[in-house]
Amino acid sequence: MNAPSLQPIAVTLGDPCGIGPEIIAKAFVQAPDSVRHCFVVGDAGVMQRCIDSLVAGGHLARAPVLRLIADPGEARHCPEGVMALYQVGDAVPELALGQVHALAGRLAGDCVAWAAQAALEGQVAAMVTAPLHKEALSAAGAPYDAFPGHTELLQHAAARHAGCDVADMPVRMMLANEELRTVLVSIHVSLRRAIEAVTYANVLQTLQIAHRALGRMLGRQPRIAVAGLNPHAGEGGLFGDEEQQVIAPAIEAARRQGMRIEGPFPGDTVFMKARQSAASADPVDAVVAMYHDQGLIPVKYLGVENGVNVTLGLPLVRTSPDHGTAFDIAGRGLADPSSLLAAIRMARQLS
Amino acid sequence: MNAPSLQPIAVTLGDPCGIGPEIIAKAFVQAPDSVRHCFVVGDAGVMQRCIDSLVAGGHLARAPVLRLIADPGEARHCPEGVMALYQVGDAVPELALGQVHALAGRLAGDCVAWAAQAALEGQVAAMVTAPLHKEALSAAGAPYDAFPGHTELLQHAAARHAGCDVADMPVRMMLANEELRTVLVSIHVSLRRAIEAVTYANVLQTLQIAHRALGRMLGRQPRIAVAGLNPHAGEGGLFGDEEQQVIAPAIEAARRQGMRIEGPFPGDTVFMKARQSAASADPVDAVVAMYHDQGLIPVKYLGVENGVNVTLGLPLVRTSPDHGTAFDIAGRGLADPSSLLAAIRMARQLS
Repeated sequence: MNAPSLQPIAVTLGDPCGIGPEIIAKAFVQAPDSVRHCFVVGDAGVMQRCIDSLVAGGHLARAPVLRLIADPGEARHCPEGVMALYQVGDAVPELALGQVHALAGRLAGDCVAWAAQAALEGQVAAMVTAPLHKEALSAAGAPYDAFPGHTELLQHAAARHAGCDVADMPVRMMLANEELRTVLVSIHVSLRRAIEAVTYANVLQTLQIAHRALGRMLGRQPRIAVAGLNPHAGEGGLFGDEEQQVIAPAIEAARRQGMRIEGPFPGDTVFMKARQSAASADPVDAVVAMYHDQGLIPVKYLGVENGVNVTLGLPLVRTSPDHGTAFDIAGRGLADPSSLLAAIRMARQLS
Repeated sequence: MNAPSLQPIAVTLGDPCGIGPEIIAKAFVQAPDSVRHCFVVGDAGVMQRCIDSLVAGGHLARAPVLRLIADPGEARHCPEGVMALYQVGDAVPELALGQVHALAGRLAGDCVAWAAQAALEGQVAAMVTAPLHKEALSAAGAPYDAFPGHTELLQHAAARHAGCDVADMPVRMMLANEELRTVLVSIHVSLRRAIEAVTYANVLQTLQIAHRALGRMLGRQPRIAVAGLNPHAGEGGLFGDEEQQVIAPAIEAARRQGMRIEGPFPGDTVFMKARQSAASADPVDAVVAMYHDQGLIPVKYLGVENGVNVTLGLPLVRTSPDHGTAFDIAGRGLADPSSLLAAIRMARQLS
C-alpha cells in the first residue's frame, strides 16, 4: 500500500436524515487506515446522536471520539479513534430520520458549498460527498433550490471561483469499481434526448475530460475504449450511422490531439473486454459509454457496494458513493459503508 | 442430473468454412454425456476433414467415428465415441477455410432448412445451430439470399408449416447463461428505431412469448422482470414517459392475463438484482430488455463462453451458441465449444 497523501480530505455529511452520518461513522470505525487525514464537514450534534444510536443498537463496535476542528490541517493530527469534524453553521436540532426537512437540506447544501470552497482554495486534497436528498435540498430554498444535485452545485462553485460561466465548466460522470471504469456522454435525460446528445462536440469533450482526469489519476497516458451507440456499433452503417458520422470522427480528432483512444466498439462486448483486460499488461483504463444505462449496467452488474461516482472536469477532486440517502433504512443501523470507503480510497488515488 | 430426453437433437453444421465443424467435433469428444442422442446435420466429408485436421494438430484427444444415419431415430443408438451424421444433399468439395463460398452458404442453409422441417414434424426434439455466415448465405442465392440469418429462415419454415403468414409467427431472442436470462423487445435495429419499437403491442407480445416459453421450460409460472427504456425507468416521467405510456400498461395487461410480471425497473440495476436473485427461493426467471445492448451487456459481461441464444415464439425449439463463424480462427484448432455445449444443454432443458 502506498503512503497516503498528507493532505486532508473533506467528507461531507450528506442529508442528516438519510444514511450519510451512519456510513461515515461506520467507515471511521471499520477502516481507520482508509479514513486517515479525513474529516467530516457537518454538524457535531447530528454526528454524535448518530454514533450514540449506532452504539446503543449494537451496530458500531466502538464510538469514535468527535473532535471539532477549526482548520482542515488539524485533521492530519488526529489519532485513530478520533473523528475530526468541521462544524458548518449553527447546530441543527434533532430531526426525524427518513423524512424531508428544509433544515436538513440546508445543512447538506452548506456542507457541500463549504467543502467545495476549501477544495478550490487547496485547503483539502479532495472532497467525498455522502448522499443528499434532492427534495430536501429544494425545500431549503435559495440558493440551493436552483441546484438539482451535487454536480450542479459544484459546477456553479467552480465557475464562480474561476470567474467563468457555468457552461465553460463542463463535467462528466465516471462510475468506477475495482474492475471497470465508465465515463458517460450524458446521464439523466431520456434515451431519446441521450441519442441527440451524441454529437461530435459532446463525444470529443467527453474524451478530453476522461483523458485528462485519468492521466492525472494514473500518472501515465490512459488507454480509453469507446462504445458505439447502436447494436454492433452500427454494423458498418446497417443499424444506424452515428458511429460513422459522429463517434469515429470524434475519436479521430482525439487521436490527432495525442490521446490513446480506441473504438467505437460494439456496446455488448466492450465492457466485458475492458474488464477482462484489467489484469493484463496493457489494460483498458476506462470505457466511454454513450448513455446512462449502457455505462451503468456493467459497472453495477456485480453489485453496487463498491461503486464510486467521480465527477470529472472540475478543478477539484470529488467522489461519492454510488447510492442515495436510503430514507427507507435511515436510523436502522443497516447501511453499508463499503461504497463510501471505496469513494474515499478513490479520492486519495485521484488527489 | 436428470435423465436426458430420449428424443434426438439435431445439431446443424453451420458454415463449413467457419468454426462450426470444429466446435461440434470438440463437443462430441469433450462432453459425451451432453451430446448423447445428438446428431449432426451436415456433410460427412467436411466433418471428417475437420476431425482429421484437429487430431493431426493435437487439438482433439481422439477422433469420433462418423456414422451416417438415414433417420434421426438412429441417433439414439449410437454409443459414446460415435458421431451420427445425417448427410444433407451431395458431398461438397473441400473449400478454403475462413472464406466466403456460395457452396458453403448453400450447405449451411440446407442443413438449417432440413433440421427445421424435422423439428416441425416432431422427428427431433430440438435443433441447435452452429453459426452460419450471412454473406455466404446470401451468395448461395435463392431461396437463401432472402434471409438475413437463422431466425428469418426458421420463421419462414414455421409459417409455411403452420399455413400462416410470417407476420403471424412473431419471435423474440433470448440470451441466457447460468445466471441470467434476458428476452429482447428488438434486436438488430438502430437505437433510434429500437425506441420506436417500444410500443404497447410489441412489449405485450414480448411478455407473452417470454411467459409461454419460460413456463414450458421451467414447468411452472415464470417470474419476469421488465426493464425501463429511460434512465431510472424515467424517474416518474422526468426523463421520458415511455414507462408510463407504454411499458406499464403492457405489464398491466399481461398481469390481467394471469402472468407474473414486475416492473418497469431501472435498467442499470434490474439485471444485477435478477442475477442476485438466482440463488433465492423465488428467483427472477428472466428480464425483458427494451433493446439489444441493454439486455446483452449484462449477459455478456462475465464472458461469452457460456452464453446461449434461444429463439422464442416458434413451434420448435432452437438454440445456438452466442458467437459467429469466427473466420479469423477457422481451421486453427483454437475454437471453444463451451457455448455450443451450453446451447445443447439448454435445448434439452427446453424440449
